[in-house]
Amino acid sequence: MVRALGVVIAAAGRGTRMNLPVNKQYVKLAGKPVIMYSLELFTRLEKVTRIVVVAHPEEVGYCRSLVPADGRITIVPGGKERQDSVYAGLRQLDSDTQLVAVHDGARPLLRAEMVYELVRAASQQGAAIPGVPVKDTLKEVDGNGLVVSTCKRDRLYSIQTPQVFDYRRLMEAYRRAVAEKFYGTDDASLFEHYCGPVVVVPGDYRNIKITTPEDLIIAEAFLRSERRDPFANRHWL
Amino acid sequence: MVRALGVVIAAAGRGTRMNLPVNKQYVKLAGKPVIMYSLELFTRLEKVTRIVVVAHPEEVGYCRSLVPADGRITIVPGGKERQDSVYAGLRQLDSDTQLVAVHDGARPLLRAEMVYELVRAASQQGAAIPGVPVKDTLKEVDGNGLVVSTCKRDRLYSIQTPQVFDYRRLMEAYRRAVAEKFYGTDDASLFEHYCGPVVVVPGDYRNIKITTPEDLIIAEAFLRSERRDPFANRHWL
Repeated sequence: MVRALGVVIAAAGRGTRMNLPVNKQYVKLAGKPVIMYSLELFTRLEKVTRIVVVAHPEEVGYCRSLVPADGRITIVPGGKERQDSVYAGLRQLDSDTQLVAVHDGARPLLRAEMVYELVRAASQQGAAIPGVPVKDTLKEVDGNGLVVSTCKRDRLYSIQTPQVFDYRRLMEAYRRAVAEKFYGTDDASLFEHYCGPVVVVPGDYRNIKITTPEDLIIAEAFLRSERRDPFANRHWL
Repeated sequence: MVRALGVVIAAAGRGTRMNLPVNKQYVKLAGKPVIMYSLELFTRLEKVTRIVVVAHPEEVGYCRSLVPADGRITIVPGGKERQDSVYAGLRQLDSDTQLVAVHDGARPLLRAEMVYELVRAASQQGAAIPGVPVKDTLKEVDGNGLVVSTCKRDRLYSIQTPQVFDYRRLMEAYRRAVAEKFYGTDDASLFEHYCGPVVVVPGDYRNIKITTPEDLIIAEAFLRSERRDPFANRHWL
């Protein structure tokens, strides 16, 4: 039984690959800034007690102007790397927070159902992340554009967010990572390195991260095709 | 200077992940079977001398009923694995074929421009494939759903088709692979294993493979958003 879920939304990245003057979290998707989609979803989940949005230091004011008045939402400035930003967000949560969901602000299409599954798995396992099987062949390429090796694809998963963790254990991993200057690719890689096994639960091919201009076209198409209520099959713990 | 380009389109797969009664190559995309998009593109390229479509043995007749009357197109039945099917297609090409492009029938959104780039690179290097940088974090997951390791993403590319090769060298790789029962993930992996370096040229995030139902939504959105002529910037060798 999960009493309370803290949420950290990472929105401090600059998204240089979008070729846009505005941060990708604030690009409009079907008329609404990308970040608002996940923010609204989390505010509608009753067990969510606190949401910390980590914005770029120069965009804290702009971010605040977008966010609805909700006593649970705090906006803080991020740090140099994504990991520094997430840590800044995590430190804002109450020390008795049981579970925390760390989410990318640039992933607007997450569904409540997947959050429930992750919370359920993380409350048993300590850490749960969404993943989908990789579709394409992957190769390692050297600096000259030549193939170095072809990856074995059988057990490779594309990892998404939100990633849900036991709050105290994730904080311990972050403290040690800071002390040792260890940088991971995502939050789970810190948990894997310092705390132990992380379980992968089925992700959703629709839960894309807005990274390149093509992703906006994809996200709008998914929104248009969405017939089911994102709150369908609501069964909380 | 490339005189002639042979093409093999692999369309023998069953596509079980589509949850559809029809093979994914024949699913309708904006009213037209998926495979027709790449087939039509290749028939419009003047240097293409021969196109071999490799169909599932039970679908050769159906495939033939779709394909336009064009003396350059041959349809042959495929084998057990994708690799067997591609080899069946390759054997249909004239022995003096200079370069061959091997393409997945389930990738409808390729552009002539990318084919030109690949042909140019392959005529110098012997083998050229399209790739795009991987966006998501990738993890290896064990049979219990637990993370085994997080991949280093810096130099990982998602590999697409068409893959373009020196025909004689690719045939030599296939002959040796058959003799040694060596199976690769894609055609380039055989070339890498037996012949030497393969160069990666910039792919296109739009050039997706129709693998799951979400991919049809994405492909239709890309088709709708396509403003440029797919034959724009036509500069053949």
